[in-house]
Amino acid sequence: MPSRELVIAFDADDTLWHNENIFEDVHARYRDMLASYHGTEAVEDAFFATEMRNLDLYGYGVKGFTLSAIETAIQLTGGKISAEEIRQLIDLGRTMLAHPVELLDGVAETLAALAPAHRLLVITKGDLRDQERKLSKSGVADYFKAAEIVSEKDTATYASILKRHDILPENFLMVGNSLKSDIFPVTALGGYAVHLPYHITWKHERSDVIPLEKNHFFTLGSLRDLPPLIEKLMVERA
Amino acid sequence: MPSRELVIAFDADDTLWHNENIFEDVHARYRDMLASYHGTEAVEDAFFATEMRNLDLYGYGVKGFTLSAIETAIQLTGGKISAEEIRQLIDLGRTMLAHPVELLDGVAETLAALAPAHRLLVITKGDLRDQERKLSKSGVADYFKAAEIVSEKDTATYASILKRHDILPENFLMVGNSLKSDIFPVTALGGYAVHLPYHITWKHERSDVIPLEKNHFFTLGSLRDLPPLIEKLMVERA
Repeated sequence: MPSRELVIAFDADDTLWHNENIFEDVHARYRDMLASYHGTEAVEDAFFATEMRNLDLYGYGVKGFTLSAIETAIQLTGGKISAEEIRQLIDLGRTMLAHPVELLDGVAETLAALAPAHRLLVITKGDLRDQERKLSKSGVADYFKAAEIVSEKDTATYASILKRHDILPENFLMVGNSLKSDIFPVTALGGYAVHLPYHITWKHERSDVIPLEKNHFFTLGSLRDLPPLIEKLMVERA
Repeated sequence: MPSRELVIAFDADDTLWHNENIFEDVHARYRDMLASYHGTEAVEDAFFATEMRNLDLYGYGVKGFTLSAIETAIQLTGGKISAEEIRQLIDLGRTMLAHPVELLDGVAETLAALAPAHRLLVITKGDLRDQERKLSKSGVADYFKAAEIVSEKDTATYASILKRHDILPENFLMVGNSLKSDIFPVTALGGYAVHLPYHITWKHERSDVIPLEKNHFFTLGSLRDLPPLIEKLMVERA
């Protein structure tokens, strides 16, 4: 393996395929369901508070989301929500899990362009089976040497993945939509990070801070801009 | 690494620590909650049917268990179950996730005895964060070179784990309580498997078939019997 190899890892939800738009759609239906009890903001605030309270036990993903939605609905309606409405919430969760995987613009072409010259990885958090299912349905699974589904994307997680795959941080580049999960932990280790903002960001993943490592941090408007950036980096690193 | 190395992998739930007893306890409370609507058998049958129907989307673990419990309760009561009772089911699920980890008899001593001479792995299925939490709370995490948390334990999964860790099937031994998940897929690959029955087995993991590979399959009454068996195998393989 050449010492100047660059391993490129991709976040999955909202980087390779649409995800937050599905959650947003469910949020809207959820607010409608509770509209006769509380306004939009109160519903969203209570729901987010429940999710954060449960995060340590539930982790990320649709199943925890659904359980938190039911819990919040019972709380906000003082127990007046009907069993039928709770059944609808369970159905909404299942619909999210069974949702078709819609690739973002340029994903297939970009992976096809990069795969011949680079080791590609997926690094994503969420429910194990759900993320495996989405990768399998995506049609792009074969471009990746490995898929790492983890419970949290922090510096310790990335360090452990790099160690497991025998990758030096300076030979690692992460692409993702979340500054908090895809960018900061990677630049902290000395790796490259490419921020690809999605048009919606879950409140828990939001951040106003921008990393300082200018020559290791890039923001792109489309995944189609990634191959030229990689090419430029490979020349600089040669 | 010596060519006759024997890598020893352990299932986690009901092999290293108690698990099914926690589920059984929750099942009992669940039947009590629904006792005024249906008898024990009808409740258990309906719940199991819901779990099996949801398994492909939910995977294994407490979160899917809780969602299936709520769904079944709504169905069995014709929507008459109260929001307060559903809140109790959510609480029960959280109690399961926060439950202390109780090691089975002899686990710590056995791992301590085997770790100096063998690579030890954990291979378990379930919710990612929950399994990580249990391993972390178990006090025995440091004995293992790696923990593989997977969505299904079938032959393909074991083959992929062996490949990733560069282990030949003939140098691999799996210890677990489930014939279906820990034994059959491993003997099918040509590995060794040690069945350590737990006093309760979830219906989905039950099997009456016993593997035929007599010199690759063993049944032990206690994990304390594992080190002598390993010693015997190492002599045979030398």
